[in-house]
Amino acid sequence: MSKTHIDINCDMGEGLGMWRIGDDIDLEIMPLVSSINLAAGFHAGDPNIIHHTIIQAKQHGLGVGVHPGFRDLLGFGRRHIRASAQELVNDTIYQLGAVREFVNLHGLTLQHFKLHGALYMHAAVDEAFAELLVDTLHRIDDRLPILVMAGSVIERMARAKGHPVIREFYADRDYDDSGSIVFTRRVGSLSSKNVADKVMQACLEGTVNTVQGNTISIEFESICIHSDTEGALALMQDTRKQLDQAGISVQSFA
Amino acid sequence: MSKTHIDINCDMGEGLGMWRIGDDIDLEIMPLVSSINLAAGFHAGDPNIIHHTIIQAKQHGLGVGVHPGFRDLLGFGRRHIRASAQELVNDTIYQLGAVREFVNLHGLTLQHFKLHGALYMHAAVDEAFAELLVDTLHRIDDRLPILVMAGSVIERMARAKGHPVIREFYADRDYDDSGSIVFTRRVGSLSSKNVADKVMQACLEGTVNTVQGNTISIEFESICIHSDTEGALALMQDTRKQLDQAGISVQSFA
Amino acid sequence: MSKTHIDINCDMGEGLGMWRIGDDIDLEIMPLVSSINLAAGFHAGDPNIIHHTIIQAKQHGLGVGVHPGFRDLLGFGRRHIRASAQELVNDTIYQLGAVREFVNLHGLTLQHFKLHGALYMHAAVDEAFAELLVDTLHRIDDRLPILVMAGSVIERMARAKGHPVIREFYADRDYDDSGSIVFTRRVGSLSSKNVADKVMQACLEGTVNTVQGNTISIEFESICIHSDTEGALALMQDTRKQLDQAGISVQSFA
Amino acid sequence: MSKTHIDINCDMGEGLGMWRIGDDIDLEIMPLVSSINLAAGFHAGDPNIIHHTIIQAKQHGLGVGVHPGFRDLLGFGRRHIRASAQELVNDTIYQLGAVREFVNLHGLTLQHFKLHGALYMHAAVDEAFAELLVDTLHRIDDRLPILVMAGSVIERMARAKGHPVIREFYADRDYDDSGSIVFTRRVGSLSSKNVADKVMQACLEGTVNTVQGNTISIEFESICIHSDTEGALALMQDTRKQLDQAGISVQSFA
Repeated sequence: MSKTHIDINCDMGEGLGMWRIGDDIDLEIMPLVSSINLAAGFHAGDPNIIHHTIIQAKQHGLGVGVHPGFRDLLGFGRRHIRASAQELVNDTIYQLGAVREFVNLHGLTLQHFKLHGALYMHAAVDEAFAELLVDTLHRIDDRLPILVMAGSVIERMARAKGHPVIREFYADRDYDDSGSIVFTRRVGSLSSKNVADKVMQACLEGTVNTVQGNTISIEFESICIHSDTEGALALMQDTRKQLDQAGISVQSFA
Repeated sequence: MSKTHIDINCDMGEGLGMWRIGDDIDLEIMPLVSSINLAAGFHAGDPNIIHHTIIQAKQHGLGVGVHPGFRDLLGFGRRHIRASAQELVNDTIYQLGAVREFVNLHGLTLQHFKLHGALYMHAAVDEAFAELLVDTLHRIDDRLPILVMAGSVIERMARAKGHPVIREFYADRDYDDSGSIVFTRRVGSLSSKNVADKVMQACLEGTVNTVQGNTISIEFESICIHSDTEGALALMQDTRKQLDQAGISVQSFA
Repeated sequence: MSKTHIDINCDMGEGLGMWRIGDDIDLEIMPLVSSINLAAGFHAGDPNIIHHTIIQAKQHGLGVGVHPGFRDLLGFGRRHIRASAQELVNDTIYQLGAVREFVNLHGLTLQHFKLHGALYMHAAVDEAFAELLVDTLHRIDDRLPILVMAGSVIERMARAKGHPVIREFYADRDYDDSGSIVFTRRVGSLSSKNVADKVMQACLEGTVNTVQGNTISIEFESICIHSDTEGALALMQDTRKQLDQAGISVQSFA
Repeated sequence: MSKTHIDINCDMGEGLGMWRIGDDIDLEIMPLVSSINLAAGFHAGDPNIIHHTIIQAKQHGLGVGVHPGFRDLLGFGRRHIRASAQELVNDTIYQLGAVREFVNLHGLTLQHFKLHGALYMHAAVDEAFAELLVDTLHRIDDRLPILVMAGSVIERMARAKGHPVIREFYADRDYDDSGSIVFTRRVGSLSSKNVADKVMQACLEGTVNTVQGNTISIEFESICIHSDTEGALALMQDTRKQLDQAGISVQSFA
């Protein structure tokens, strides 16, 4: 049951123009992860940042995925916008194509597709959007994996379509007994030791402890760690160290 | 010397959200032309418009090119923005990729690349931008034709690189003796009969009359007609009629 | 019970850069109404359009109100964005100030405040937003009337605060027995004669016929007509003609 | 000749949404300066940031000015956009009004007007823009001081009009013998001690040393320090300390 290798994915390129997020630790995090989700310009990122981040990711041998979000710079893509499925799918294709062109220009192949923020959550629950998105992505590239929350609507739609999915384990979020994420974090729950221990338990035993005090089994092909949480760098360093010591190789799923 | 066939290209998809340009005659113009330059979202156009315009263009059998512009919705890409060559090339790649993804989704292949407005003029005169753009486009796709003004810096750069170019004849602009466009239009110069006659002379004799009253020879592989000039539809209808009557086939260069 | 005078308000300045809405009939509508709701740049409008529209409104002696919307050019402010009350109030103040500066520059005084599209509906139902907005507007200018839907949350909040409100009668919308607007229009319900008759009945008898076939009483101080509905100009002309013939003066509430 | 008091102005509120500039030291700088130039949303800043920065500025007793820039988030207002004088003045009024509304809401009065980045430079050299801007500001508020570069076109226009100006001394820029700023900084020229010494010499003796090695006289009513230069905080602390020790009071010009 214990994993011998695992992917770690992290959002990157989340600046805009001269602005950077938090401590701007993209370059420090790159050696610790295997895949990046590259902001595509609607909620963060711009052509220059996309260009430079891909060059850096290539130097670190990382898999590059596109990370489309709502058209919402002011809200960083965390605010839901009530739009039709077709509008949102079109926004998504636009961002996908824009990032893919840079990925190709630098001699890489787009590794995966992961929605950002409120759009990720929308695809997790909205049938019309999830279905149209999966159908469209399947027509575009039937081998481009979609990173999903296990049990989400989009996971179900993709599996029904025969489209590849990668399930994520959220290292810096709490789980409840249903296997869902608890969005209100408990105070103190995010020490880097806690996170590293949680990742190790998930990788070695395939389980996670819930906020109710139980232990449930969990399946995943990638670990998601957010670079904009406080102490993200230390958290990733500790996690990576423990994985290395346990002989679990961090490598992208591609 | 007389042409047996010629391409006509026209800007399309130049709305934004609910807004349309002028009389919104895209659908009426499509039967009259062979290629469209599709606005890519920075100066006009949005993912929904791109999506729908490609569907329509496909129904009319038109060649679809990408039409990147400055990031300037308020100025419709007609205002020069002083930015570095690399920034502008990155903006261009982003738009190219976004549109290409939709083109591919609908089973077509991107036919050409044409810059819009002030960015078109910038590439016509700025060596650093033109060179970096040509080099980058050549890396991306060394068979994607660039529509250019004859004698422009970008034409020279492209030829030096061995990159394909398509020279435009501007049906609705005046020429001077040097073969350059005169940007201040003369009053009355744009009657649809004038334009049609001018196109016929260019196609049949390879010449154009200048504002100085002379006749010079002119070479081109595509006729550019702007859909946002007043009376554009009548102008295109007359031009197309004369071409048809003369047995000159309107077909894309691809 | 019959009115001797009434205000007609209409949205204006709803273009962006070179784009205009529909037939761009602002100048034709101005002689027919008494108040305009001026788009403030977030869902439509820009500084140049604001500037010119105020000049035109002044020439026609119209009352100028500010018409803030969601930050959503692509959706024309018709898409709800899930944001906090404080964020939305701040967006609103920003737009109010921007428009007020132009109004003052041209020697006028801002006449009223009316939210646009999805933000108008949000204030009609969301207590937190409506309350914070009313409190803030009251601090800014306790005599600036808010145009509201009768029975809305924002009307209640404003009355509780002692802040002036103007209730609207929606000439081009259907009512149900509860006095609420029916958002799905019936086919054919918008003939200009129907609208004009409806306005006359409302002004003369204080009643409106509902989609259920009943007649209910209705109270209002302004008639709202949308300039972007098909046939808006004819509709307004007919309505205005009937009001004139009945001796009901069209004049702003200020 | 020695000054007994002087204003220090600094750009603030230069974030966007979740993004902040550099180390986000606004709160640490506020105790050290007397006036702030508040980004107004076109090149940086948004309604929430404007709202919060004014609250903080009020707590520190600072004078709040509006800091309009080009509509250029991606370039932080440092890229010139070729637009007409009227367009740019309209953009400026819009931003002025938006910020003024928040300033008034918090019980303050807008203290001054200062253009940002490339727009500041544009007003320093472009007669048409400078004249229309001064005329318009004079109509809006003939007592609202404009912060200017000594010897600039806008200073000349304002003086001709009888409009109040405040001349700036650029503590973190080099001067040449003509009294102009040298935009290419010399390596090493920005040690905080250098800057503090330069400010003291300017305040005590009314002179500045030039890059040519000469000393010229200089007149100013405000010291401009940029918060986004590296080491800005230390630089301001040292400068403020020396001013305090010399008994020169830091206070706004209002």
